[in-house]
Amino acid sequence: MKDIKNYIQQNKDRFINELIELLKIPSVSADTTYFQDVINTSEAVKLSLEKAGCDKVEICETNGYPIVYGEKIIDPNLPTVLVYGHYDVQPPDPIELWTSPPFEPVIKKTEIHPEGAIFARGACDDKGQMYMHVKAFEYMIQSNTLPCNVKFMIEGEEEVGSVNLKSFVENNTEKLKNDVILISDTGMISNQQPSITTGLRGLSYVEVEVTGPNRDLHSGLYGGAVANPINILSKMIASLHDENNRITIPGFYDKVEDLSLEERTEMAKAPFDIEDYKKALDLNDVYGEEGYVTNERNAIRPTLDVNGIWGGYTGQGAKTVIPSKAFAKISMRLVPNQDWEEITQLFSTHFTAIAPKAVTVKVTPHHGGQGYVTPIDSIGYKAAHLAYSETFGIAPIPVRSGGSIPIVSLFEKELKSKTILMGFGLDSDAIHSPNEHFGIFNYLKGIETIPLFYKYFVELSK
Amino acid sequence: MKDIKNYIQQNKDRFINELIELLKIPSVSADTTYFQDVINTSEAVKLSLEKAGCDKVEICETNGYPIVYGEKIIDPNLPTVLVYGHYDVQPPDPIELWTSPPFEPVIKKTEIHPEGAIFARGACDDKGQMYMHVKAFEYMIQSNTLPCNVKFMIEGEEEVGSVNLKSFVENNTEKLKNDVILISDTGMISNQQPSITTGLRGLSYVEVEVTGPNRDLHSGLYGGAVANPINILSKMIASLHDENNRITIPGFYDKVEDLSLEERTEMAKAPFDIEDYKKALDLNDVYGEEGYVTNERNAIRPTLDVNGIWGGYTGQGAKTVIPSKAFAKISMRLVPNQDWEEITQLFSTHFTAIAPKAVTVKVTPHHGGQGYVTPIDSIGYKAAHLAYSETFGIAPIPVRSGGSIPIVSLFEKELKSKTILMGFGLDSDAIHSPNEHFGIFNYLKGIETIPLFYKYFVELSK
Repeated sequence: MKDIKNYIQQNKDRFINELIELLKIPSVSADTTYFQDVINTSEAVKLSLEKAGCDKVEICETNGYPIVYGEKIIDPNLPTVLVYGHYDVQPPDPIELWTSPPFEPVIKKTEIHPEGAIFARGACDDKGQMYMHVKAFEYMIQSNTLPCNVKFMIEGEEEVGSVNLKSFVENNTEKLKNDVILISDTGMISNQQPSITTGLRGLSYVEVEVTGPNRDLHSGLYGGAVANPINILSKMIASLHDENNRITIPGFYDKVEDLSLEERTEMAKAPFDIEDYKKALDLNDVYGEEGYVTNERNAIRPTLDVNGIWGGYTGQGAKTVIPSKAFAKISMRLVPNQDWEEITQLFSTHFTAIAPKAVTVKVTPHHGGQGYVTPIDSIGYKAAHLAYSETFGIAPIPVRSGGSIPIVSLFEKELKSKTILMGFGLDSDAIHSPNEHFGIFNYLKGIETIPLFYKYFVELSK
Repeated sequence: MKDIKNYIQQNKDRFINELIELLKIPSVSADTTYFQDVINTSEAVKLSLEKAGCDKVEICETNGYPIVYGEKIIDPNLPTVLVYGHYDVQPPDPIELWTSPPFEPVIKKTEIHPEGAIFARGACDDKGQMYMHVKAFEYMIQSNTLPCNVKFMIEGEEEVGSVNLKSFVENNTEKLKNDVILISDTGMISNQQPSITTGLRGLSYVEVEVTGPNRDLHSGLYGGAVANPINILSKMIASLHDENNRITIPGFYDKVEDLSLEERTEMAKAPFDIEDYKKALDLNDVYGEEGYVTNERNAIRPTLDVNGIWGGYTGQGAKTVIPSKAFAKISMRLVPNQDWEEITQLFSTHFTAIAPKAVTVKVTPHHGGQGYVTPIDSIGYKAAHLAYSETFGIAPIPVRSGGSIPIVSLFEKELKSKTILMGFGLDSDAIHSPNEHFGIFNYLKGIETIPLFYKYFVELSK
């Protein structure tokens, strides 16, 4: 495909500038302060799909943020690829740790990205990776090489659990009918060693509230005599893991699939250096479930992490207070076969049960989703494998990711088609963290690889 | 003392309005945002002492907020009373729980205060109780009944550990020379049953920081494989108490005095209803160290309470992050004989020791102070006993308070004199909490009782 290489060369700057404009809009779906910005982003995505060559583009209203739908049907008898992505982003905080403002994209060179990377919230997750598909589609239209039908479904609530996507998909199965779903919202091992994500973890996200006395109390006058909600919450959180770092919620592991030694041996082949890993994170040691190595702990094993905790006086200086309440946001990563709603219920029941009589506990489920596995013998996987092999010059490795894209299992259930996770990001891109970035190399490589997926998918489907 | 009663009747409204003006200034010493307000409050206190009749009043600069010193020396051969108080206040947060703005004082009637109470931050702790002394002094000047010399030392850093008072006292022992120190910064059992605080707990206040990875991480990609600072901090905090709610820090209890059964029986005579106590705080149950009742847990036993905790995402909605750091503010209430600096060291050593290799821990001591006991056979205590008995018509009960006034032990060490804690507040006054208030009855009763203390102290000193 010499043509695509040339096309990218000629349009490189425009591709980058268009993405930068999109990244300037702070589409933080978790914080209503950004409401109008999220709406504006959906409009910008709509416009980009029209410009790229979709016949029909619509803003589909939901009970939350709208879903942008676009399509190009060239022949009903040809296969159809459904591209899914999201235009919303994670909150930027802690904002003070960003070396440049999260919504003022800048290109900086890094050790891993000598050709430069775009630094901005959403650069990789998922505006950058989503926009690769728009530009790859533009190329296929311009070069008249689009081999099949395309549908785009770009949502604005992925970072808050895709709360309204479920009903949209359920109510539009005909409109969304497809032969394969393509998502670029994951990563690969490195720019030298591409990989395709074949497994995703599920998720259960809850918020807990522990209430002690009905008002904040002076810790001198009451200290020692009443339950301190922070001490109690800490005790309850600590009790959720045992001495082997296994989760203590009754029934939590009942449906966890135990991978065969053979599969674990296969996984262990992926290049990984524990010292580099620790060095990259400034860690003296890794930490996790007994009996599993790092790459298993963050991929094939379920977890329980506190994502946020707060209570009492957190300002400057000292305040001797026993707060009335303490809070925590807790998420559990689940593996295939674990049902997120069942796990949420198990957590809720257990967490309430372990609370001492001296406090009251409230558990509020936020959202969740099931895990997923992509069969490596599917046409979609094979097509992706060929595409990466051709553009990177080396065969991609199938890997299980620890991340979650809850809607993937929903798609399979409602649309009866498999999802291929063609990720081009890197773990070091700091998604969900300060200084998120996306390599120029990765961005352009994605645009170059995607049309090849279409080509091989159509060929293999014949 | 019919005269004082009349004087209070005639000047009641002015006394209340003067205090209200003082309460309008947000002198929050813990938050530098209020810097100028704290300074302005010291000026207001200086002016009030001059108006009340001090010969000499000075603003004494320190490395922090100034100390207001005033004196009235009528005869070097007569005893000298040193009045200590503080003009700074606790932060008002959580501000949303105040029924009226913390720095816009209003008078409201309550069940306990049918004559009304002044609602404002600092109303009781300590502007209201400090100002009683200024008005009592004004009366003795106006009625020409001041029986001895008076010195006032009103500081502006009590709520942040009186960090600069120590050197001020050490460098001014001659200027501060006195026969007894009078402090109204404690409470009494009820308006029907006065009490005098004869014991105070010491305090050690520290801040801890737990660091895991060098940046916030995506909880999907890293969850299960790296130590989550919040989970670890919770585990470490939980481990600081054993199953009997005894503190697990090695050596922590070594110097704790074990009260005789006789003393404990004496204490148990103070009127106390556990059901009322639970009802007032909406508690299903109390909580504390095994083997001790509520009034012992909060008075004669040391404690460890988390006063604040924070880490990760605490905003609206959900963020799947493993934070780089988690923090907590932890305070320990100490009993007489426990040395706060030694305990701070024991905590620091232990907390660092229990940290897993996968994280790094930083412990920063904030401040602290020793516990204290007032002998009930001292002239000062006897004088206070007589004064309360006369104005309340019932003998006050000696009680141990769970609170801390770290500087009391400093005074004894440097100034070689005993401190009498003539408190007129009530536990229900919600000091350090939203809706702090001080009863009009209590305020005026204090002004009425204080001159009697002077009278009896001088008589008993002859």
